[in-house]
Amino acid sequence: MKLNKNFANLQESYLFSKIAKKVNSFTAENPNKKIIRLGIGDVTLPLVPVVIAAMQEAVAEMGDAKTFKGYGPEQGYSFLKENIQKYYKSRNINIVEREIFVSDGTKSDLGNILDLFDKENIALIPDPVYPVYVDTNRMAGRKIIFANATQENTFLPLPDRKVKADIIYLCSPNNPTGATYSKEQLKEWVEYALANHAIILYDAAYECFIQGKEIPRSIYEIEGAKECAIELCSFSKIAGFTGTRCAYIIVPEALIFDGMSCNKMWLRRQSTKSNGVSYIVQKGAAAVFTAAGEKQVQQNIAYYMENAKILANCMDALDIWYTGGQHSPYIWLKCPKFKDSWKFFDYLLEKANIVGTPGDGFGKNGKGYFRLTAFGDRENILEAVARLKKLVHNI
Amino acid sequence: MKLNKNFANLQESYLFSKIAKKVNSFTAENPNKKIIRLGIGDVTLPLVPVVIAAMQEAVAEMGDAKTFKGYGPEQGYSFLKENIQKYYKSRNINIVEREIFVSDGTKSDLGNILDLFDKENIALIPDPVYPVYVDTNRMAGRKIIFANATQENTFLPLPDRKVKADIIYLCSPNNPTGATYSKEQLKEWVEYALANHAIILYDAAYECFIQGKEIPRSIYEIEGAKECAIELCSFSKIAGFTGTRCAYIIVPEALIFDGMSCNKMWLRRQSTKSNGVSYIVQKGAAAVFTAAGEKQVQQNIAYYMENAKILANCMDALDIWYTGGQHSPYIWLKCPKFKDSWKFFDYLLEKANIVGTPGDGFGKNGKGYFRLTAFGDRENILEAVARLKKLVHNI
Repeated sequence: MKLNKNFANLQESYLFSKIAKKVNSFTAENPNKKIIRLGIGDVTLPLVPVVIAAMQEAVAEMGDAKTFKGYGPEQGYSFLKENIQKYYKSRNINIVEREIFVSDGTKSDLGNILDLFDKENIALIPDPVYPVYVDTNRMAGRKIIFANATQENTFLPLPDRKVKADIIYLCSPNNPTGATYSKEQLKEWVEYALANHAIILYDAAYECFIQGKEIPRSIYEIEGAKECAIELCSFSKIAGFTGTRCAYIIVPEALIFDGMSCNKMWLRRQSTKSNGVSYIVQKGAAAVFTAAGEKQVQQNIAYYMENAKILANCMDALDIWYTGGQHSPYIWLKCPKFKDSWKFFDYLLEKANIVGTPGDGFGKNGKGYFRLTAFGDRENILEAVARLKKLVHNI
Repeated sequence: MKLNKNFANLQESYLFSKIAKKVNSFTAENPNKKIIRLGIGDVTLPLVPVVIAAMQEAVAEMGDAKTFKGYGPEQGYSFLKENIQKYYKSRNINIVEREIFVSDGTKSDLGNILDLFDKENIALIPDPVYPVYVDTNRMAGRKIIFANATQENTFLPLPDRKVKADIIYLCSPNNPTGATYSKEQLKEWVEYALANHAIILYDAAYECFIQGKEIPRSIYEIEGAKECAIELCSFSKIAGFTGTRCAYIIVPEALIFDGMSCNKMWLRRQSTKSNGVSYIVQKGAAAVFTAAGEKQVQQNIAYYMENAKILANCMDALDIWYTGGQHSPYIWLKCPKFKDSWKFFDYLLEKANIVGTPGDGFGKNGKGYFRLTAFGDRENILEAVARLKKLVHNI
């Protein structure tokens, strides 16, 4: 029996264990110093009341033979899919229920969707990037080309028509940079994909943080996108479901390559390799779309975005270059004082007792940059800002 | 962009839609006839009280900032893994926590574990079989050889030493036949796998139905199995989690091929393509292992097994050949009167208003055989038996 040798090509991921080691070491030597963590990509506010109530009700149903639910439809219950459909409709995008697939997470969908694509395709992936895009393709043995996101293009790479790619990864608002594409920029990508008979995997996991109506919240706001793009979104950020696990992936029926339908293939893949998402969790997710649910999750989103604004204002005050913070809980800043992100990490930890994430962890273009996140406690955010101002003024 | 052409080699799965069509048709023409469904592979009893209580508590925790859980460890929380470890220990099997991976289902694990294996491996799959084993390998473009399960070998195929295989599927107690391997028979398979440097995927999803101590409940009861077998098990049948979604897969650290560790690869695969199982669901699963939980789930298992016994006794009384029913909720019978399973299906539906599953749906060796399941309501089981006796006596 031969194992998949592509796994030997994966790099060890040391980013978070390296961070943990440094933080543990510092804490051991400085037990009285209060560390503020601005590196986490996890939510901190609890699930909202209407979601809790819906799940309590669903749990009770599961304890009663009359309302007990066994195997559900692998693609998700209609009561949830129709709400997702309405969510798109409210933004003038028409998706049919058959194009919506409920899952336990965008991370799962990102990994599993690759089952549909031949190994010989070339993946075009931004750098810096959420490492999952890279690793999932390396596991399949696929060739990867990187699209450089740099300060010069404000971390929003555009298509290079000299480059041929088959699977294009776009994430907007971006993790880790928080940068967001404009409608015109996405139009260029859709045109490029159509011209190359390529597919776009559009990660919209952070769309809920977008303010106003200018910045697109879905790739399907661009004409032609249904013929070339799959969109992934999640309840993790909009409703704090990082530990509850629910997401959705849109696979349009218009997505056809060599006469084969991606939608039919995904339906088959999920019917074969999944038994769907917990009924209880789907009931919780559906509650997000009620009037009360929308109000409650928007309060949490506003809380995080106010944190982001406070961090962004701090960057402005300190004249530090950054992206993000406006339509994203992530701030991606150019390290002051140091060219090396890890040196800045150490400096920030030792002098200000703040933990962030060095940009190196996201790719070569992350060197010299740093990610701070706005998911934490308001008081901690304010204190962190005070410490940053003191620190940087003394540089 | 090229799609995965292996999907074109999948057969359309018409089994359950064909059954549904016939049943709907019959119901439309015979609205007053009470149909008894003995075809379902789904549980019918609700989740037990102690699981419900645990999940209510977990839901409440998720609504409170002090106890809220965000991202959990992808392999599952220790509070659940240590319980699974103890479950094995109680049967004298030593597994370390690192070898246990919690997932949302055996169906997912069966599909996803194949990421670890090269495409060029030969899969050895029983016939008749749970169709997922076949389809997941066809999607990967893998060559499949079938191990014939027939009445001659009481649907318990043993290794053919002339046949070379790399990935061996065993399911015991079996779906669809309910047949169970003895320790001696499993020993032959382990020896075969070790001699062939092959891997066994041991589907133990129905182990909870085994009565007594003779029949093995884990492949690891066989010496040498840790060097050649991965075991999959689920909360679906033991605790009725078909709609709640929780399972586990054991990947021993001793499982090494060409110097590569399957355990390390699976850890990497799941860390990259999954964010773990809902905290709420894991809390429910852990409750199964409490004293109260064990008592309550055993009551449900006993209920199903009493149903199975009633069905099995009926087969005995009618002198119909069958396997299963003793350590499994499935009865796999040789169709009386008809050589064609679908003709027997129609006959059973029209004359006795009972729905079962024709063996054809599980492979060529299923022709002429039929599956009945014991998950239904006791009264319906008793009534079904009365109707069967009347029907078959009149043949």
